[in-house]
Amino acid sequence: MSSVDEALSIIKRGAEEILVEEELIEKLKSGKSLRIKAGFDPTAPDLHLGHTVLLNKLRQFQELGHEVIFLIGDFTGMIGDPTGKSATRPPLTRDQVIENAKSYEEQIFKILDPEKTLVMFNSSWMGNMDAADLIKLASSLTVARMLERDDFSKRYASNQPIAIHEFLYPLIQGYDSVELKADVELGGTDQKFNLLMGRELQKQHGQAPQTVLMMPILEGLDGVQKMSKSLNNYIGVHEPADEMFGKIMSISDELMWRYFELLSFRPMAEIEDLRLKMEQGTNPRDIKFQLAEEIIERFHDRASAVKARENFIARFQKGAMPDEMPEVELQTEDGELAIANLLKMADLTGSTSDAMRMIKQGAVKIDGQKIEDKSLKIQSGSCNVYQVGKRKFAKVTVL
Amino acid sequence: MSSVDEALSIIKRGAEEILVEEELIEKLKSGKSLRIKAGFDPTAPDLHLGHTVLLNKLRQFQELGHEVIFLIGDFTGMIGDPTGKSATRPPLTRDQVIENAKSYEEQIFKILDPEKTLVMFNSSWMGNMDAADLIKLASSLTVARMLERDDFSKRYASNQPIAIHEFLYPLIQGYDSVELKADVELGGTDQKFNLLMGRELQKQHGQAPQTVLMMPILEGLDGVQKMSKSLNNYIGVHEPADEMFGKIMSISDELMWRYFELLSFRPMAEIEDLRLKMEQGTNPRDIKFQLAEEIIERFHDRASAVKARENFIARFQKGAMPDEMPEVELQTEDGELAIANLLKMADLTGSTSDAMRMIKQGAVKIDGQKIEDKSLKIQSGSCNVYQVGKRKFAKVTVL
Repeated sequence: MSSVDEALSIIKRGAEEILVEEELIEKLKSGKSLRIKAGFDPTAPDLHLGHTVLLNKLRQFQELGHEVIFLIGDFTGMIGDPTGKSATRPPLTRDQVIENAKSYEEQIFKILDPEKTLVMFNSSWMGNMDAADLIKLASSLTVARMLERDDFSKRYASNQPIAIHEFLYPLIQGYDSVELKADVELGGTDQKFNLLMGRELQKQHGQAPQTVLMMPILEGLDGVQKMSKSLNNYIGVHEPADEMFGKIMSISDELMWRYFELLSFRPMAEIEDLRLKMEQGTNPRDIKFQLAEEIIERFHDRASAVKARENFIARFQKGAMPDEMPEVELQTEDGELAIANLLKMADLTGSTSDAMRMIKQGAVKIDGQKIEDKSLKIQSGSCNVYQVGKRKFAKVTVL
Repeated sequence: MSSVDEALSIIKRGAEEILVEEELIEKLKSGKSLRIKAGFDPTAPDLHLGHTVLLNKLRQFQELGHEVIFLIGDFTGMIGDPTGKSATRPPLTRDQVIENAKSYEEQIFKILDPEKTLVMFNSSWMGNMDAADLIKLASSLTVARMLERDDFSKRYASNQPIAIHEFLYPLIQGYDSVELKADVELGGTDQKFNLLMGRELQKQHGQAPQTVLMMPILEGLDGVQKMSKSLNNYIGVHEPADEMFGKIMSISDELMWRYFELLSFRPMAEIEDLRLKMEQGTNPRDIKFQLAEEIIERFHDRASAVKARENFIARFQKGAMPDEMPEVELQTEDGELAIANLLKMADLTGSTSDAMRMIKQGAVKIDGQKIEDKSLKIQSGSCNVYQVGKRKFAKVTVL
């Protein structure tokens, strides 16, 4: 296999779509170090594994000798939500942007090589742009073309308002590629329209259009919906090692192979070997151990990964309780607390009805004893270990 | 009649629509000197009487004690046509803008009182606006609302491209009203959408919304289509007095009353008196003389007006031009008609060779001027009096 073929095969690993592959091959053949762009939101950079799919791809480009531009889209973030409709999106200050960038760096350099990464801010050029330049930029595209974008067309068809400035954001993202002279831009499949905008604007500015590489959206722990905080099916990169380990062990075998492809740094050949071993009788659990350890080592360290595995084995295989668990103190007004309220207040269940259901299923234990009485009252002054399902523990004191 | 009622009646003269009249009445009652805004194109300020309809209304406001802001929209003119599609609209330089403003002043101060007129340029504020501010401005309105604009909706429905920056221009026009704190904005009926934009943006900026006063589009000499250069049915404010006089005398009696309403400075009561006189037998031609003289005096001087009338009488009345003559409309397929064909088709000669002979003999006149060129072509859109020999006359319009 030639080095270009090899590079291409690494780049295509897990990728959903490449536009235009032939152009990418030419770029690889040139032997140049390419400029690989990926844009990130300036707000709340609290990453989960879903976000790292893109970062892992950027890392692969770095290993192939290319330069990564980690672009923080702070320009629009510093405008805030100009409709004033979103109370949760006030404009970011310069200090907040820098704070968030630091937080990004702390997380992304667990994956990316800092030597081959340029962290940039699009306010560098957009902040100097005047209204006349923006009008010229806005002349690049038609309303009809913009309304082709999937979400815009749906909103327009269903009479949901689209404010006019929303049409300007894809243009700004595209213009960032012009400023950066990007050779490749990475993004999720949901970003296709905006990524292609870069190509159009680069052509209009006499540049070779960037190759667009779209990565899939990672499924969450349920294996169905996309990994996201709001669906609570995520693994955050800041989570404690034991949490991470338990969550990864909870995924299906099928999802495990998906995670190997998109999250592991192992070469695909090695992953194929593992798959072969499983087919030949190796316990999938032991292979999942390897995935969990690799990921925990990445975001913590080797020792934590080994310890997390040992804790996991101790808890679930030896049937014992974890060495460490959250300790909670709950106030009560009338000297007692209903079990369902307690479980919810201790964050062991999402709601009291959730708690009721878990009790009914026999999934709730107090000090290792399964409980069956949904109307159980816990007296103040008691201190017990509560367990919900296999992995959720808390030591609760009722005051 | 109270002074407010009187003012309102002057303001409503000839106006097509006022939004909202109740608000205007409140503003008039306040006794304040109001800021009356009207926007003008920064390119080629070569005015014809159609443009002066608006200027006359501005003059009426001045006579009522209000302040006129004559706003030259040079900001977008200095951007040029950002699509690059129009070779005829290169960006204007600062010098050209100033040159054009001078040319405007030279023309408009024949109507407006310079003491009560502020000539302003919207580049004063738009030139300092940055991209972020423009994005905020663009957030004020939705795409759906913008596509309600008549010409946008037609273009969108018929798949004609609308570039995105075109959505920004109405917003800029509206924002100009915010900057100017306009109390009233004047415009043509074709400007309704843009005029209302000012109201919306002023409300968003906590200002009382401007009253929008729309004047009709003046009909050209044909009395049907709007006065315009391209239709060649206009009277330019720079035209020689004799030209102006002849053109005004060529309009129908009905159009004469329309011109009196929209172009004359005479009070409506005086115009009603003239109408009464005509009904009582005064020759309409003599009333038309008064209109022509008033307009020529405005753009030239009193002496020129008197001279133009005398010349007109000399040409047509002393030349035994009848008060009444056949009026003929001729169709043309390729935009022009050979003089010989025209004379035959208008029944002024029996044949084209007959026509040729009469021209050779010097017996053919157009508007009193002898013609000598047998191959003369008459353009469509023209309306002239043709005379063959001493007694044959026809007023011919070439369509």
